[in-house]
Amino acid sequence: MSIRCSVFIATSLDGFIARDDGGLDWLNAAGAAVPAGEDCGYAAFMKSVDVLVMGRLTFDKVMSLGKWPYDEKPVVVLSGSAIEIPGELQARVSASSEKPADLVRRLSGDGAKHLYIDGGLVIQSFLNAGLIDALIITVVPVLLGSGRRLFGPLEGDIVLTYVATNVYDFGFVQHEYQVARPA
Amino acid sequence: MSIRCSVFIATSLDGFIARDDGGLDWLNAAGAAVPAGEDCGYAAFMKSVDVLVMGRLTFDKVMSLGKWPYDEKPVVVLSGSAIEIPGELQARVSASSEKPADLVRRLSGDGAKHLYIDGGLVIQSFLNAGLIDALIITVVPVLLGSGRRLFGPLEGDIVLTYVATNVYDFGFVQHEYQVARPA
Repeated sequence: MSIRCSVFIATSLDGFIARDDGGLDWLNAAGAAVPAGEDCGYAAFMKSVDVLVMGRLTFDKVMSLGKWPYDEKPVVVLSGSAIEIPGELQARVSASSEKPADLVRRLSGDGAKHLYIDGGLVIQSFLNAGLIDALIITVVPVLLGSGRRLFGPLEGDIVLTYVATNVYDFGFVQHEYQVARPA
Repeated sequence: MSIRCSVFIATSLDGFIARDDGGLDWLNAAGAAVPAGEDCGYAAFMKSVDVLVMGRLTFDKVMSLGKWPYDEKPVVVLSGSAIEIPGELQARVSASSEKPADLVRRLSGDGAKHLYIDGGLVIQSFLNAGLIDALIITVVPVLLGSGRRLFGPLEGDIVLTYVATNVYDFGFVQHEYQVARPA
């Protein structure tokens, strides 16, 4: 399978991607220092993505924002229970309860080459399944002390290969690591 | 008080400073890739330090290594209970159950200008007391999934100021942040 799975996400220095209630106020507050037009590589990354895979919590958060931000990009929402997808999104958003490996195999069979894996729990399940190839993490200069974590328990250590760091002069630091896929 | 408190520590990408049992095997394994003589700035940092303040768990770990690594540097071990300090260390190592602010005030009164705060729980208590000025964190390219965390719960957000990043070509990335002290 020549398909890659990447993570592209912002965290606090203590590793949180959202507050306990999903709140992103800290990220928005930090974003006030970001110059207009600076997206820390997000648009270029998204352009390389064929399908976005997210968890239910992330989907709910995105829906709460009022405006669908992914244009025509195909999105799969992983959820063990039924979710309601508004009619205007049904052509590009689907729900699935597949296991990560099954989903990746299916999307690869459909021709996808690059998946964007989003949401803490989904990222953790893909990491544990040995399915993540690249981690691109933008560290925001704040400590939150609690919230929803990017990383969780693992079945074993995952050794990474450092790829690159981008430092933004407003204080964000973006790292890229590669994960060695099991042979 | 013109005294500064700094953290200088290595963590996994998921924020652990040791395994649950205090194990540093992952750090030693990663260290195999570090060229001889490269200390990621540790000696220069230590040279700037007047007193090292550590927690009981860190002290026990250091003692277990068999060789005291801090030469003549004064060390204070924070512990709520009595600890046994070997006779040959008693001239430079002392135990204290002081609160962070009281300890910093006393050491400042003794003329100390720069404290090295080490150990997860001690770092967390100093952060919560608003006593940390600088965080120098060396991120090791591995995910552990569990262990002892560098950061813990906070009484509120702590906004940081990004200072610098050092990238080492063996894959370690060292960040420096400053914490704005409450006025």
